[in-house]
Amino acid sequence: MDELDNLEALDYDALQEKHSDELLELLDQKNMKELKLRMEDMNEFDLAEFLSEIDDKRMAMVFRLLSKERAAEVFANFEPPEQEKIINSITDSELTGIVEELYLDDAVDMMEEMPANVVKRVMRAATPQTRALINQYLNYPENSAGSIMTAEFVDLKKYMSVKDAFARIRRIGEDKETIYICFVTNASRKLEGVVTVKDLLLADPDTEIEELMDRNVVFASTTEDQESVSEKFSDYDLMALPVVDKEGRLVGIVTVDDIIDVMEQEATEDIEKMAGMLPSDTPYSRTKPLEIYKNRIPWLMFLMLSATFTSMILTSFEQMLAIVPGLVAFIPMLMGTGGNSGAQSATAVIRSLSLGDIEPKDALRVIWKEWRVAVLCGTTLSVVNFGKMLLLDHLILGNPSVTILVAATVSLSIVFIVMFAKLVGSLLPIGAEKIGLDPAVMANPLISTLTDAVSLLIYIYIAKLILGI
Amino acid sequence: MDELDNLEALDYDALQEKHSDELLELLDQKNMKELKLRMEDMNEFDLAEFLSEIDDKRMAMVFRLLSKERAAEVFANFEPPEQEKIINSITDSELTGIVEELYLDDAVDMMEEMPANVVKRVMRAATPQTRALINQYLNYPENSAGSIMTAEFVDLKKYMSVKDAFARIRRIGEDKETIYICFVTNASRKLEGVVTVKDLLLADPDTEIEELMDRNVVFASTTEDQESVSEKFSDYDLMALPVVDKEGRLVGIVTVDDIIDVMEQEATEDIEKMAGMLPSDTPYSRTKPLEIYKNRIPWLMFLMLSATFTSMILTSFEQMLAIVPGLVAFIPMLMGTGGNSGAQSATAVIRSLSLGDIEPKDALRVIWKEWRVAVLCGTTLSVVNFGKMLLLDHLILGNPSVTILVAATVSLSIVFIVMFAKLVGSLLPIGAEKIGLDPAVMANPLISTLTDAVSLLIYIYIAKLILGI
Repeated sequence: MDELDNLEALDYDALQEKHSDELLELLDQKNMKELKLRMEDMNEFDLAEFLSEIDDKRMAMVFRLLSKERAAEVFANFEPPEQEKIINSITDSELTGIVEELYLDDAVDMMEEMPANVVKRVMRAATPQTRALINQYLNYPENSAGSIMTAEFVDLKKYMSVKDAFARIRRIGEDKETIYICFVTNASRKLEGVVTVKDLLLADPDTEIEELMDRNVVFASTTEDQESVSEKFSDYDLMALPVVDKEGRLVGIVTVDDIIDVMEQEATEDIEKMAGMLPSDTPYSRTKPLEIYKNRIPWLMFLMLSATFTSMILTSFEQMLAIVPGLVAFIPMLMGTGGNSGAQSATAVIRSLSLGDIEPKDALRVIWKEWRVAVLCGTTLSVVNFGKMLLLDHLILGNPSVTILVAATVSLSIVFIVMFAKLVGSLLPIGAEKIGLDPAVMANPLISTLTDAVSLLIYIYIAKLILGI
Repeated sequence: MDELDNLEALDYDALQEKHSDELLELLDQKNMKELKLRMEDMNEFDLAEFLSEIDDKRMAMVFRLLSKERAAEVFANFEPPEQEKIINSITDSELTGIVEELYLDDAVDMMEEMPANVVKRVMRAATPQTRALINQYLNYPENSAGSIMTAEFVDLKKYMSVKDAFARIRRIGEDKETIYICFVTNASRKLEGVVTVKDLLLADPDTEIEELMDRNVVFASTTEDQESVSEKFSDYDLMALPVVDKEGRLVGIVTVDDIIDVMEQEATEDIEKMAGMLPSDTPYSRTKPLEIYKNRIPWLMFLMLSATFTSMILTSFEQMLAIVPGLVAFIPMLMGTGGNSGAQSATAVIRSLSLGDIEPKDALRVIWKEWRVAVLCGTTLSVVNFGKMLLLDHLILGNPSVTILVAATVSLSIVFIVMFAKLVGSLLPIGAEKIGLDPAVMANPLISTLTDAVSLLIYIYIAKLILGI
């Protein structure tokens, strides 16, 4: 950390870029000895980034300079395309080394992303025991606790002393994802309690684990959805969560670093659904246009076709609207305002539902709140619009068709449209959650299409009333 | 964990609800002794949930049954309204006990949410040292690493042996947020390295820390944005991140449990901005309607007023559009399709930017990708629409105004509208990021308003071309 002496170095990313440049220079000079030495000290994520940025041939060559352990660590930090390149450029025995060194959850993640021929080769390279475990994990439902858990945890027995526990941690701890949270199981592998290394360190070496352990363990079941697992991490500030099977036997643990990825993934899925896209597991930068097309066209198509109702309404009132010139010009603004108002409410409600901030049983409270917001927003917009139409359209632009009555028609419509949009926007997601659907699909696009049609009807009805057409 | 013997118990939440009911019963029976005993065993989050659900008077009474340490743990898990109630119902010396027991970051979080009079009372109750620290932390910019870090970490010196290190951890570890990651500092408190308890446990007791420590420490500076801090946690799978000041001195650490909250908060902010709302720190359920109104009205107003352009375009072409009856009826569908297409692209790009998946320098690659997606989506929608208009509108509904030429006009417009919308939808967020603006505000609402106006112009131009009006 000598670099910390100068100010520039106080930005970790800048520091890494400098290191990267130095490594590139060593590589150009073919100074493999120094390169290898420098790579041993580097963080595995930074090393993976560095390797991803050089050409394929040199990447494979440099990768093979790494020790078996380092190689597995760096491999786990690669994106799937780089993993595939590496697998295709190393020998079977090197592959076995990596697969066996990988944490089980990282190995399973990789298998889910690889093409079939690569999966086959990896499975062949794995030991029978690892192969059986990978197969078992691949069989848990997608996005379940079982599919994201890992098997590398420390288990203790309650009759052990603190001294015994430390001896066991020292013996088996090296390859565990976490040694800080240890799980106490009985003879039939049922979870009995949890004890932290902090408890162990602060206790007398002769204390029995039974005295130290916390029996009130927060746990998940193998089939539990990963969203519920990540809520537990957020509620209980966990570092690791034990996963039990139907019989209460401890089968794996989920660690907090995996949950961070789950949270990013779940937020992305919600955001995608809210914008009318099918959610995708692959990052945008690695998704092919055809794939993107397949995720986007279903909703676009459905929404385009459902706009038929709006067209039909417009067609049947076309004659009537034409009587008072100027009315048609405000239709897009009214529909836009309805759509935006509805989208705001839907977004707020969907996000609150997904964070556990509100529940379906809060429906009445939410509606009452949104109703008050709608009255406030609707009247403000209405008043401003009335002033704007009279001042800008009527006086300044001298548009003859914008009379006081037309301005009143448009402005009064705004109030009702905003109120309708906000109620529908908040009710649809809650209703979806109540009947077990994903509230996120009830978002902006669907709500706009619905509010489009209803906004038009409200507008026409009020025009009839005020303008007597 | 005797409960694990029956199957019902395999759902942790169901288990907690049962416990909660039992506590309520004890409370009703005024069996305080048993209640106190049961509460000592409970998880502090579950206990906070239980207390939040009973009435205020009983909540304060039950809270005062807790030991000082437990009280602080439960207090940290309360939402701000409950914290305020508790503060208002305990004595000054009880308040001092809680403030001193709280982790500094939890104390600072609380202060940021409390009204001024409560803040004053808490500050009076704190010891001068704690008061100075809270004041210092409150002065870091909002959402900076400094504002979310905590001061409770274990620091070691490099000349210590493993044995010395354990002795120090045992002595000072009790109140630290994490003891598992220890930070090595020199005499002037500059950060020199990091060592984990795992390293210490697996090493010989006489080894010097200098031999074990990793000098390549990932760190953040006090003024760094929390979004960048949370990216580091996600990239490097960290449990704790040291925060250094301008001189490289270690001033605090951020722990992973705080980052989980940061990630939820950042995702919520993005989602809110994308739906045209000002982001809010307060959960929806605790935000008053007037507050919600203030967050929503600015964008609604701006978007309503900017729809004036669309109105003006419609007004000036009203005569022309009226020549061919039926054209007007398809305007909402075209605008909707444009808005939805643009929103999809914008959402995908904004999310990718915020996850670090793409960067502004990828602009050309993104445009090329979106262009291909737009061609695919545009032609599919166009063909389906052409068929639908001829079959449904023309043949089945017998709408005389939907001629082949009108159908061709609408369908051809779709292609160009989708292409325009997808390009604008992907370009605006990247452009915003490039000039240092938040890409999320370039989302759906703004893009719909823009595509509304341009869609209309495209439609009119193509109508002129095909229908010769």
